[in-house]
Amino acid sequence: MNNQVTSPKETVDLSDLALRAGLADYSPVRGCMVIRPYGYAIWELIQKELDQRIKDCGHENAYFPLFIPESFLKKEAEHVEGFAPECAVVTHAGGQKLEEPLVVRPTSETIIYHMFSKWIRSWRDLPYSVNQWANVVRWEMRTRLFLRTTEFLWQEGHTAHATAEEAETEAKRMLNVYLDLMQNVLALAPYVGQKTDSERFAGADRTYSLEVLLRDGKILQAGTSHHLGQGFAEAFEIKFQNKANELELVHLTSWGVSTRLIGAIILGHQDEKGLILPPRVAPIQAIIIPIYKKEEEKDKVLNECQIILRELKEAGIRAKIDANDQITPGAKFNEWELKGVPIRVQIGPRDLDNNVVELVRRDTQTKLSGTPRQGLAARINDLLAEIQSALYERNLKWRNENTYEVNSLEELNKKMDEKGGFARVHWCGDSEHESKIKEATKATIRVRLFDEPNEEGKCIISGKPSQSRVLVGRAY
Amino acid sequence: MNNQVTSPKETVDLSDLALRAGLADYSPVRGCMVIRPYGYAIWELIQKELDQRIKDCGHENAYFPLFIPESFLKKEAEHVEGFAPECAVVTHAGGQKLEEPLVVRPTSETIIYHMFSKWIRSWRDLPYSVNQWANVVRWEMRTRLFLRTTEFLWQEGHTAHATAEEAETEAKRMLNVYLDLMQNVLALAPYVGQKTDSERFAGADRTYSLEVLLRDGKILQAGTSHHLGQGFAEAFEIKFQNKANELELVHLTSWGVSTRLIGAIILGHQDEKGLILPPRVAPIQAIIIPIYKKEEEKDKVLNECQIILRELKEAGIRAKIDANDQITPGAKFNEWELKGVPIRVQIGPRDLDNNVVELVRRDTQTKLSGTPRQGLAARINDLLAEIQSALYERNLKWRNENTYEVNSLEELNKKMDEKGGFARVHWCGDSEHESKIKEATKATIRVRLFDEPNEEGKCIISGKPSQSRVLVGRAY
Repeated sequence: MNNQVTSPKETVDLSDLALRAGLADYSPVRGCMVIRPYGYAIWELIQKELDQRIKDCGHENAYFPLFIPESFLKKEAEHVEGFAPECAVVTHAGGQKLEEPLVVRPTSETIIYHMFSKWIRSWRDLPYSVNQWANVVRWEMRTRLFLRTTEFLWQEGHTAHATAEEAETEAKRMLNVYLDLMQNVLALAPYVGQKTDSERFAGADRTYSLEVLLRDGKILQAGTSHHLGQGFAEAFEIKFQNKANELELVHLTSWGVSTRLIGAIILGHQDEKGLILPPRVAPIQAIIIPIYKKEEEKDKVLNECQIILRELKEAGIRAKIDANDQITPGAKFNEWELKGVPIRVQIGPRDLDNNVVELVRRDTQTKLSGTPRQGLAARINDLLAEIQSALYERNLKWRNENTYEVNSLEELNKKMDEKGGFARVHWCGDSEHESKIKEATKATIRVRLFDEPNEEGKCIISGKPSQSRVLVGRAY
Repeated sequence: MNNQVTSPKETVDLSDLALRAGLADYSPVRGCMVIRPYGYAIWELIQKELDQRIKDCGHENAYFPLFIPESFLKKEAEHVEGFAPECAVVTHAGGQKLEEPLVVRPTSETIIYHMFSKWIRSWRDLPYSVNQWANVVRWEMRTRLFLRTTEFLWQEGHTAHATAEEAETEAKRMLNVYLDLMQNVLALAPYVGQKTDSERFAGADRTYSLEVLLRDGKILQAGTSHHLGQGFAEAFEIKFQNKANELELVHLTSWGVSTRLIGAIILGHQDEKGLILPPRVAPIQAIIIPIYKKEEEKDKVLNECQIILRELKEAGIRAKIDANDQITPGAKFNEWELKGVPIRVQIGPRDLDNNVVELVRRDTQTKLSGTPRQGLAARINDLLAEIQSALYERNLKWRNENTYEVNSLEELNKKMDEKGGFARVHWCGDSEHESKIKEATKATIRVRLFDEPNEEGKCIISGKPSQSRVLVGRAY
């Protein structure tokens, strides 16, 4: 098993990898990427899995306008402060200057809650919810394929509740939906907890997040769920008549994940040869490579490949034959390893004679020569499940092995340089001292775990008393 | 059967219907609508059907940036002339004025073909294709829910070919995919043909379209497929090395349908009571209504409704119980008729005793009392198929009954006022005379049918000789 700890230096560059594997390309628009079919197919698989889970929670999809009147954004003070600097603004349309500029949505709380105020009347309407699959735009200074792009695709869910308790429960429920998606579909083992006040979503009471440890030792915030409280409800006057016929403000939540998840998959599982895709999000789960030297072998081998392809497809496996005769089998191996296809199926004239094939696992590079031709589809399905679970275990182990206690700033800096990962440190809870951690080490407080035990300690910056540790790391 | 010809006056107003049925709502942004869950669920069903058909043609999905540099739009002269007046323009972002304004995509030919020029190298890369599901923005002067909104959702497919013949074949193949979708899923019977030069897509050699006759006698262009020729290929330098090692320009096609299809469904099938949704795009195919007076009947009836619901769902039917006890069964009937649910299942205490239910067809209002409880799911599935086909036949008959020959401008005007529909007229082929038809009658040339027979005649405007008729009508 390839569970060995890789040092940050060994890993390949994300952009280079995403480009070479055909997931994405740079576009002529600053910070915007093109998601190519192979990358988009991963997104479609994620969407399908997540959309079903969201619907199973009773949330329905809807669609709200791309444009938000500038005045809407300003209604919630913290929100506008957080997002205004990142906004793209439409000032002209239809050949004329607009009376009020329109912001291209960086997120849709304001426009959705404006509509909520029209739709919600009574306690009978609650809980009220919508989910939206959409593109959003945030004018970031530094961009990076999949991890931080000016435009990205995401889903954003929004719910309204009669009580704070129900909103809290919902925010955590959706966080758990994301956790289930990441663990069981993306084969990642994020830490889950609460953000500090300075890292809260602009306008939220509380922000929860999922933090994934990548192969390079850096951390990625891969999804968030916010308990928004009543701030937006007040700004947009979302009131409901309660059972006592009094008007009350609703309690809101919002939650989202984006194409950043593709970045989490790439950097969470790759090795020096390229991508390693978890089977459940692999657009191609098995690549069939015909191997022959003489022209007279070709037809027989290709014919068998077609039969195998049909069998695999019938068994629900996403399979494909690479029959390109312009390149050698060796070049094909490299190409499909780069693209992270979980299983390679090789078949040559001798395999045909012996009624076997050779299987190669992408994650461990293990060769399974002489795999019986009979029952091949079932064998591959088993192997896909094994790979899925091995990748999860690998990420979990990687995370656990790289989570450690640190009790001074010097030690934190040293460990971050050496191996990255999650440092468990004591912090007094003061935002000023939180920012000093970042200044001194380039690492930030990622989350306080929900199940973090109480422990007496001293803040590594201020020396003041602290009741529990938080997770610190260098993040993308 | 409700196949009777309805006069334009009898039909309800689209916006009013879309709002009351909960499909959409007005937004605070000029010309932009909110697609509410019930409307969006129709879109998801259309997407699922069409996406599979597009993939079956070998086209893969991808995603390109929302923003297009203004200079790109200007590279193809006809294209910029057609779209510039409708563009929304981002001039500021990240708190600064942009060096080059960015246009919010009104369609993506320019940005996609810029990428094609990077990706296409050799004849081996051809045909090359991508499809994109996305939002687009066109700053229209007059907007109308679903039919013409500032922002709308659509798919746009783009293909590159080695020869004009292959591009022509592809443009027509995708037109036929849309025809199949409309006939077999949306239960609509559009006419299919070629647009005149003045109605061509800006930058295309030829535009083909599908034209649906709505219940109000007006016509809706419901989808288009363009053979773009080599104009864009030249502007964006999309060249490939042919088998003789010479550089050649590719031949392009593009094709799209949008949320306008929901408008076609609404206005193509509605009656005075509201929507009539074809079963294949109905988010709810069967609504189960419990009927009881006394409290002691309630549990028994509701319990049976739950059993029926489970049976229907197991049979693949999208079903729902309306158990709301705040409103009467009569009010529920009205509500679900307004929403166009194909089949209503009513069940009361006497039905329970007799082991039957009452079914009501939305399209014909036919009541099927005493439908045996046993085999109910199969009966409903059969009925759904019957309704699907009856709605198609009704639209086809409506179209055929309202297609007629007209030989003078006066007659055209009179017929348009009386009944709308498709007038078959002779036209000399001159754009100047084409625009006079519109000035005189508010009707436009919709298409020349592919299979339009040759017939000697005289242009109804110029009196000049014409070799065949074209279809004229008043369109949205």
